[in-house]
Amino acid sequence: MTYVTAAELRRFIGDLFVRVGMERGNADMVAESLVWANLRGVDTHGAIRLPRYLELIEKGLMNTRPEPKIVSETAVCVSIDADRAPGAVAMMRALDQAMTKARQDGLAMALVSRTTHTGALGYYTLKAAEAGFACLAVNAANPMMPYHGARGAAVGTNPISIAVPGGAGDPLVFDMATSIISNGRLLQARKTGTPLEPGWAVDKAGYPTTDPAEAVMAQPLGGPKGSGLSLMIECLASLLTGNALIADALQNTGEGARHRQNAMLIAIDVGRLMDAGAFRAQVERTVSALKALPVAPGGDDILMPGERGFRTMAERETSGIPLPKPVVDEIKAIAERHDVRPPTMSDTTVDRQSA
Amino acid sequence: MTYVTAAELRRFIGDLFVRVGMERGNADMVAESLVWANLRGVDTHGAIRLPRYLELIEKGLMNTRPEPKIVSETAVCVSIDADRAPGAVAMMRALDQAMTKARQDGLAMALVSRTTHTGALGYYTLKAAEAGFACLAVNAANPMMPYHGARGAAVGTNPISIAVPGGAGDPLVFDMATSIISNGRLLQARKTGTPLEPGWAVDKAGYPTTDPAEAVMAQPLGGPKGSGLSLMIECLASLLTGNALIADALQNTGEGARHRQNAMLIAIDVGRLMDAGAFRAQVERTVSALKALPVAPGGDDILMPGERGFRTMAERETSGIPLPKPVVDEIKAIAERHDVRPPTMSDTTVDRQSA
Repeated sequence: MTYVTAAELRRFIGDLFVRVGMERGNADMVAESLVWANLRGVDTHGAIRLPRYLELIEKGLMNTRPEPKIVSETAVCVSIDADRAPGAVAMMRALDQAMTKARQDGLAMALVSRTTHTGALGYYTLKAAEAGFACLAVNAANPMMPYHGARGAAVGTNPISIAVPGGAGDPLVFDMATSIISNGRLLQARKTGTPLEPGWAVDKAGYPTTDPAEAVMAQPLGGPKGSGLSLMIECLASLLTGNALIADALQNTGEGARHRQNAMLIAIDVGRLMDAGAFRAQVERTVSALKALPVAPGGDDILMPGERGFRTMAERETSGIPLPKPVVDEIKAIAERHDVRPPTMSDTTVDRQSA
Repeated sequence: MTYVTAAELRRFIGDLFVRVGMERGNADMVAESLVWANLRGVDTHGAIRLPRYLELIEKGLMNTRPEPKIVSETAVCVSIDADRAPGAVAMMRALDQAMTKARQDGLAMALVSRTTHTGALGYYTLKAAEAGFACLAVNAANPMMPYHGARGAAVGTNPISIAVPGGAGDPLVFDMATSIISNGRLLQARKTGTPLEPGWAVDKAGYPTTDPAEAVMAQPLGGPKGSGLSLMIECLASLLTGNALIADALQNTGEGARHRQNAMLIAIDVGRLMDAGAFRAQVERTVSALKALPVAPGGDDILMPGERGFRTMAERETSGIPLPKPVVDEIKAIAERHDVRPPTMSDTTVDRQSA
């Protein structure tokens, strides 16, 4: 493993996206969201995405100079056509508008269409929770998971995230894909040859398989539950913005093959509905009650939604973000190709370097 | 099996709840929601619940003459203390207010605290979809499922339901519990001695078991996913209304042992955000695209969320609602005890009777 500080990685990614055409503010926003994922241990949504983001930009699928437009707006709703903006840019704007509107009467919604890879949804809901909001977000992507009863890729692994302000501790940040395991985990199993558990994946012909070499797609979480929820997320995020991903992809319209995503964010201003301190105290009580339970046989810890991420973040803020060799090599190659100074990286953890 | 028409079953349940103290309008509302579940094939939420509802009334846990109060209100939010009203009464009132408010600016939310068993959540979200709304509802109940990593009942099997208006066909109505299987199915397996699948349930000591005789609780759907989502539903529905179910139950406060539920409903007026016809057309397109996919190996049909329920409803509206003997016996005993004329029931399907 090679280690890099969050600040150095942010600096590099920000400079890189400025170099390929983004405004400084937008480039830094994208950098922050990717590095946040690395800090939290969600490495599948971090720096590993850089080659893909650059590819999207080269193909004109991610717009480095987007001009997002408001398509419809009321006192509590806004629907934004993101003009293929980088996901973090579109989502941060949507979140900002949802929170501003929700401060008036306690509730607001932002819809985002035609954005690109939004990254880890928990990044946005957590920001809302830190500002005193309960927040629910869903994200619709192109088909890459079977729909229950059907063969082949039919729906996205569309995630749902919910966050609420914490008591004395951190906010609770829940973020789950509607697939039973992530495609990242599937790839990992293929590389290491680790057999999959029954029900996790299907092969090319649509048959369930535990052979990582044969597995092409993760199954939906709980069959009709995961794929049904994914479809409903498509209805909310995509169809309410008039940007159908599933239908376009399955009916092979030209648009269907192009990368794009849609999202819905709902912000609830806790303090407009009840005493915010009383709410936080109840979250605290609930967390304490759960943590006081006996540990399950074979278990070792009772973790709240997002807690593992906060722990990893504390650790990586001190010791640095570990990057496996292939990612380090990619970063160096990208730095050279785009003539950006690569981040300072080291084979020892950051805290040991300074010691 | 014994068959009863929906009208007869509704008449009986309405009369019964009037007899035990409810106003006619409220009694009919409860009757309609229970019979709807039977019509849709969700028999676990239908007439089988009558003894439990009567028990709740006798114990003073379900209030036959509730006086719900609005605790807080803004232009787009309302928080209602249901005063232990029957679930259907509180939820219909909340839904009505959410829809009325959402007609103004496209979005509104109703929170309900201190209600009782809300029944099938899809009943309410479907009503909203039929009126042109996209609707998301969640419902918090007392602990009856483990929290991932902990032993014993810790969180509810808290469901989430989402419905949207349909195109030419029916609305899409998604409704799932956060447990991997329902407790009804667990009971069923125990009665018939059918072995459970690995991962479905735990025994008294918290160990996973496939023995239906040893199984005491269903596992959360996808471990940390299902139990995390359930906890977040508690945060939204219970903690935003100041009525903590998990903390009260686990900390053994007097209130914790008493039956009560909380809920959150969000209504989105589709026509305020975009052309409602265009939305319906996109739902139609998406459904067609999914139904045109090849069927999965071993599968036989590609069903949309709620479709099985619509099919069963069409069937049962013609042939009647089938009731197993124990439920028929219960209905007869209840009718006698409360001096209400029992519903006309027959051993042949309703359509054959009239033929």
